[in-house]
Amino acid sequence: MNGNAIVGQSGGPTAAINATLAGVIRGVFQNKNIDKIYGMVNGIEGFLNGNVKILNEIFAKEENLKLLKNTPSSALGSCRLKLPAADSNDVKDVEVYKNIFASLIEKNIKYLFYIGGNDSMDTVKKLSYYTKKNNIDIKIIGVPKTIDNDLICTDHAPGYGSAAKYISATTQEICHDNANYPIKSIVIVEIMGRDAGWLTAAAALPRLYAGKAPSLVYLPEAGFSDERFFADIEGEFKKRNDIVIAVSEGLRYADGRYVCETEENYETDIFGHMQLSGVADKLKYAAKERFDCKVRAIELNTPQRCALHIASLCDLNESEEIGIKAVEAAAKEEKSGIMMTYKRISSEPYKIIIEQEKIENIANKIKTVPLEYINEAKNNVTDECLKYIAPLIIGEPEVIYQNGIPCYFSF
Amino acid sequence: MNGNAIVGQSGGPTAAINATLAGVIRGVFQNKNIDKIYGMVNGIEGFLNGNVKILNEIFAKEENLKLLKNTPSSALGSCRLKLPAADSNDVKDVEVYKNIFASLIEKNIKYLFYIGGNDSMDTVKKLSYYTKKNNIDIKIIGVPKTIDNDLICTDHAPGYGSAAKYISATTQEICHDNANYPIKSIVIVEIMGRDAGWLTAAAALPRLYAGKAPSLVYLPEAGFSDERFFADIEGEFKKRNDIVIAVSEGLRYADGRYVCETEENYETDIFGHMQLSGVADKLKYAAKERFDCKVRAIELNTPQRCALHIASLCDLNESEEIGIKAVEAAAKEEKSGIMMTYKRISSEPYKIIIEQEKIENIANKIKTVPLEYINEAKNNVTDECLKYIAPLIIGEPEVIYQNGIPCYFSF
Repeated sequence: MNGNAIVGQSGGPTAAINATLAGVIRGVFQNKNIDKIYGMVNGIEGFLNGNVKILNEIFAKEENLKLLKNTPSSALGSCRLKLPAADSNDVKDVEVYKNIFASLIEKNIKYLFYIGGNDSMDTVKKLSYYTKKNNIDIKIIGVPKTIDNDLICTDHAPGYGSAAKYISATTQEICHDNANYPIKSIVIVEIMGRDAGWLTAAAALPRLYAGKAPSLVYLPEAGFSDERFFADIEGEFKKRNDIVIAVSEGLRYADGRYVCETEENYETDIFGHMQLSGVADKLKYAAKERFDCKVRAIELNTPQRCALHIASLCDLNESEEIGIKAVEAAAKEEKSGIMMTYKRISSEPYKIIIEQEKIENIANKIKTVPLEYINEAKNNVTDECLKYIAPLIIGEPEVIYQNGIPCYFSF
Repeated sequence: MNGNAIVGQSGGPTAAINATLAGVIRGVFQNKNIDKIYGMVNGIEGFLNGNVKILNEIFAKEENLKLLKNTPSSALGSCRLKLPAADSNDVKDVEVYKNIFASLIEKNIKYLFYIGGNDSMDTVKKLSYYTKKNNIDIKIIGVPKTIDNDLICTDHAPGYGSAAKYISATTQEICHDNANYPIKSIVIVEIMGRDAGWLTAAAALPRLYAGKAPSLVYLPEAGFSDERFFADIEGEFKKRNDIVIAVSEGLRYADGRYVCETEENYETDIFGHMQLSGVADKLKYAAKERFDCKVRAIELNTPQRCALHIASLCDLNESEEIGIKAVEAAAKEEKSGIMMTYKRISSEPYKIIIEQEKIENIANKIKTVPLEYINEAKNNVTDECLKYIAPLIIGEPEVIYQNGIPCYFSF
């Protein structure tokens, strides 16, 4: 019996989340059991407000689907709504789920695909719990995305490879820039990553190929000490004039305090995560005082997650494929309450397969960089770490330039 | 009679200064009157310390010359040395010039090419004054470069188009990123430009082609007022939730004070220019207080001048060509004391020719954005302005990617 499908995007932007959306749409087009494909505008929050689009017609045109794959951020719009507990007896909470499922059933939705990160998998977990408890025949599938690469049970997350490629290429360019003058200088590059240093580790990648890379790399997992930081810089200045340092925004001291922590400069988001910024700036002033040389802080900021023009083709292709496979899992294998995952079969040659994991095993857990990927001095990553990242950034995206500017999809 | 040539790079990095270096080397290879081509390591400062390289052999390989053209920052290294007045009678000053010319004559240099911005043209002016005063037969040629586009007597400056392309593409991606959530949000993008708003104007380019662009654009030439800024934002919020604003680092109030000016946050460089940073941060806190919404500050920082991976092919090709033409001007036309310039013949179709200007007419003067390129509300640029910039960013560079990372030249 035929039904319809719906897809939503949730959480922060990545360069690859639209590739997964394109994959889900493509998967639906390839599946004869599914008629319409709805898109939630601004995720589950928009859906609760009745905000949906039918996607069949616009993406029947292959050129639109290709353009969508090569467009950063969430084309459907995103949200950060945290659903109430699915077993709550609170009247308002019960109402939320009733509204969601009344609307899904009204649209004859049989398959729901939710593309997002850790917090969004919490939504998948709650929706699929509700379907099981209430015996509702709607398959709920989570498709991961996060530049942070901190999702467990998957070799890596869609979106990470593109962010890693941007960070790697941009930091290499910053190294060339900083080598310009024959003077002592320090550049501190601040990279996203609240608890996991995967993104910061990528800054070191050009080292594998004798390219210019930061000589000091600090991850949140390694613990941070001002005195070790100063000693590391002193050591580097014995070897060179121009020092580039990569730091995670989430660097912490041994006592757990964030390096950037001051009373004024943090806010907490609705999931209780601290919003960090300013670690490079803070270390800049500290280094300036200590070394009396030119010190610059560069926060790579949101281009890390939206620079589609230098996305990883490997990432975009895999992100599309995992969307296609999500539809197969739901419609052909009748799976529900799962998140799609990557399993690495080998690194050289690089080969992955797409698998699935029960959503209960995933939501709200975090995968950090293992300590064996960090060097003994705790001021860089190991070659093993770089070899793990290396295949994920391979290939350049098929960006269409018009008038010298990348051309992106918009509804 | 045959002689040798020497080339130096000076001032801040650009994505195209090595393309001009490649052009000068190519020009020398095409000229039978010139034997050796020396490179100053770290410009005139390094030359004074005897730091030179012979470039013939390494760049006899076409692949190295091509790689050099596609490498950001100054491959030879740069400097910011300000030469003393060429007519100074001070013993130390006289000594500097004696040293320079003794070394040039000892190497049988007949042609000196100096690639740089406003401050470097000051060096060209002084060296050529000295040759004329002392009847020394060495041709001194300035070849411009500056991302700021603030050199007079030339339609645009080599290096500007690449920076403009990066700013235009990156700001467009930031606009996509900021449209992610259905909430009120402001992103303030800080763009380089101390006195001239050419770079900031480029952020608006996607507007010409119905791409996403900042809806408010503030240039130093327009004058700035906090109250007008707030009123502009209020106006924008009536039309949309997600506001992206492009600001020049050098924004000033009507009384001439820099917007970012506070006692702590400026330093002065050796040419007396104030080093600016922090305008986006300052406006962020002001906007946050006023509008109580999500406000983010993004400083595009040094990637503006070194992101070769998204350089403008038009810029790289022209930058190479102006280097070739500089050698012709010196060796064939026996010119000296000039800076090479671009003259625009037409915009549609885009066509330039390469000309020359006496160095006395150039050094230490600045070309700002004309007021007719700024809209009446002084919060954006006109389409005429964008049409001037548009052809300069056309074409994508021939970057060689190895293992997913751009491959650059290093000595």
